[in-house]
Amino acid sequence: MDVLAEANRLKADGHDVISMAVGQPSDPAPQIVREAAREALADGRIGYTDALGLAGLREAIAAHYADHYGVEVPVSRIVVTTGSSAAFNLAFLALFDAGDRVAITAPGYPAYRNIMAALGLEVVEIPLGQEGYLTAAQLAEAHDGHQPLKGVLFASPANPTGAIIPDAELAELLECAASRGIAAISDEIYHRLNYVGPDKTALAIRPDVTVINSFSKYYCMTGWRIGWMVLPEELVRPVERIQQSLYISAPEISQRAAIRAFEASSELDAVKQRYRQSRDMLMKRLPQLGLRIAAPMDGAFYAYCDVSMHTNDSMAFARRMLAEAHVAATPGLDFDTVEGRRFMRFSYAGSVGEMVEATGRIERWLGGAG
Amino acid sequence: MDVLAEANRLKADGHDVISMAVGQPSDPAPQIVREAAREALADGRIGYTDALGLAGLREAIAAHYADHYGVEVPVSRIVVTTGSSAAFNLAFLALFDAGDRVAITAPGYPAYRNIMAALGLEVVEIPLGQEGYLTAAQLAEAHDGHQPLKGVLFASPANPTGAIIPDAELAELLECAASRGIAAISDEIYHRLNYVGPDKTALAIRPDVTVINSFSKYYCMTGWRIGWMVLPEELVRPVERIQQSLYISAPEISQRAAIRAFEASSELDAVKQRYRQSRDMLMKRLPQLGLRIAAPMDGAFYAYCDVSMHTNDSMAFARRMLAEAHVAATPGLDFDTVEGRRFMRFSYAGSVGEMVEATGRIERWLGGAG
Repeated sequence: MDVLAEANRLKADGHDVISMAVGQPSDPAPQIVREAAREALADGRIGYTDALGLAGLREAIAAHYADHYGVEVPVSRIVVTTGSSAAFNLAFLALFDAGDRVAITAPGYPAYRNIMAALGLEVVEIPLGQEGYLTAAQLAEAHDGHQPLKGVLFASPANPTGAIIPDAELAELLECAASRGIAAISDEIYHRLNYVGPDKTALAIRPDVTVINSFSKYYCMTGWRIGWMVLPEELVRPVERIQQSLYISAPEISQRAAIRAFEASSELDAVKQRYRQSRDMLMKRLPQLGLRIAAPMDGAFYAYCDVSMHTNDSMAFARRMLAEAHVAATPGLDFDTVEGRRFMRFSYAGSVGEMVEATGRIERWLGGAG
Repeated sequence: MDVLAEANRLKADGHDVISMAVGQPSDPAPQIVREAAREALADGRIGYTDALGLAGLREAIAAHYADHYGVEVPVSRIVVTTGSSAAFNLAFLALFDAGDRVAITAPGYPAYRNIMAALGLEVVEIPLGQEGYLTAAQLAEAHDGHQPLKGVLFASPANPTGAIIPDAELAELLECAASRGIAAISDEIYHRLNYVGPDKTALAIRPDVTVINSFSKYYCMTGWRIGWMVLPEELVRPVERIQQSLYISAPEISQRAAIRAFEASSELDAVKQRYRQSRDMLMKRLPQLGLRIAAPMDGAFYAYCDVSMHTNDSMAFARRMLAEAHVAATPGLDFDTVEGRRFMRFSYAGSVGEMVEATGRIERWLGGAG
């Protein structure tokens, strides 16, 4: 976040900074979504909704599971949340008690760890291997013979790597968790940004997992703060109660707008097509610059690179790259407190032109810095 | 919340239910606010903002403290939040650790207790006397000779009563807290809905308190989920970090819209004028119906009534009133787990016509039921 603040400062001073640091699309929400928001504004009061969310949005999400995954999800198990941020907090509060051991991966999305710490959970970080995703064997190893794990949270596609858990391995992982009584939370926020195959939701394998998703990434709705979760039936009422106190409801205007998001696939697939172009370019260019790609860039819009050819202090590397090349990217320490010193995350959510320009700048900078 | 759900069910079945149950204005957000939202939609991406909020909104809030209260509040101490709900959670996380004793009032807003319980804080409920607000003497009594209190949270005007702490008593209360090292949180969400005098912010008395406020009530922006807090300087950085993980930022469209809310005073004062009419009517009518007003209706849009002339089970009373008179109101147990059985909260945030009709229905119903 220091890099972000410094990048904003440089931009405010008129410098032409390219950001590969932020995990958000540069495109606005789809036309039809913004039109729905305008209609909500015209209709009158933007008020509290049911804590579980507007019926129309919950139904649209259920229809999405049928259409996109071929999975039947009852509307009663769908909860609309104030972004996936709220969904994580709600899931942790409903599933776990202070002191419970809950596993996440290293590297991984830093908010997982921070929210868990705020709630007094014991965070168990499982270091990932070359494959870049959590395996059943790794989960079993973190559980068996230790204080038992109460939960496990993983993302596929993952942040910061973009790695995707293959279907068969996802099934093994969920089976491993279920057989040990470990509650599984599947973060599917980067679904539909899969460049190597169709999405597989954990719900297609085990209907009793908790799935968290959002309109932020594929649907280009970060600042609307709107997401959802699919819960095991018995968690719905507890989550409803906690939501009433902690959030009341997700913003109604965002709920009204998100109902239409599933109709915008052609507009959004065009955006995805641009990510794919940047991805193909970066998969070639980054290794040429001595930035080894540390995990398969199968999804999301990130490249996680081993920068140890250039530095063993990714924070200093990020600061210098920003100051000297005017390219912002995120030091790996944000995602992995142990190994992160030799990694950097590059987001390619910006335009293709920006990504080309950024790699050119990095090349010249590394040439000069070398 | 059961009453709310049942009221919605009756409405969906075509029954003409009048709600005196919900604490939200029936008016839409001011014109100028909705126009600003439309402009944000037209401008392009609705994205994440700085965790502390848009600079323009923080500046507008600082200007509001100067204009409305004559108090200088540095922009650096203002944090924009996803409604006051987020502000409470952030304040508790930044100020307290699990197990800490924190005082609230009984009756009081139920989410205080629920959020604290979710965070593992020890909730100390201080029963209020006839005056309807927390006094320095009551706070001292809950602290001295017990495990020390780490914090105290109070609202003025209060939910569910509308009671306002007189200026001199507020100063004594804040002095009592400060001298004992008790962190004070002043919930000022019902400010500008004061029917008996000018508002006094706790910041005018002690700049080192935490103040929580929102655009939900006076500004008619409930469903936008947008509020703010003013923090002691040393809490800003901790709150910024927690906000980054738990919320990322408040919804950008709501932030862009709220910047204009302070310009809408004439439109909003007209709404307040209608609340005042309903209040004047209810102050007369409710006691005539045997619904004794339990605390001065000085602010907000609530009447908290002692219903013990009719029942000692306010939950059953609320259910019957809804089923038989088609008027929804909130049983006191939501606000006071001990004494709430003999109280009900009536919200007059609806139209004057609805309030007149509702009291007529209650009168006929009590006549028939008696």
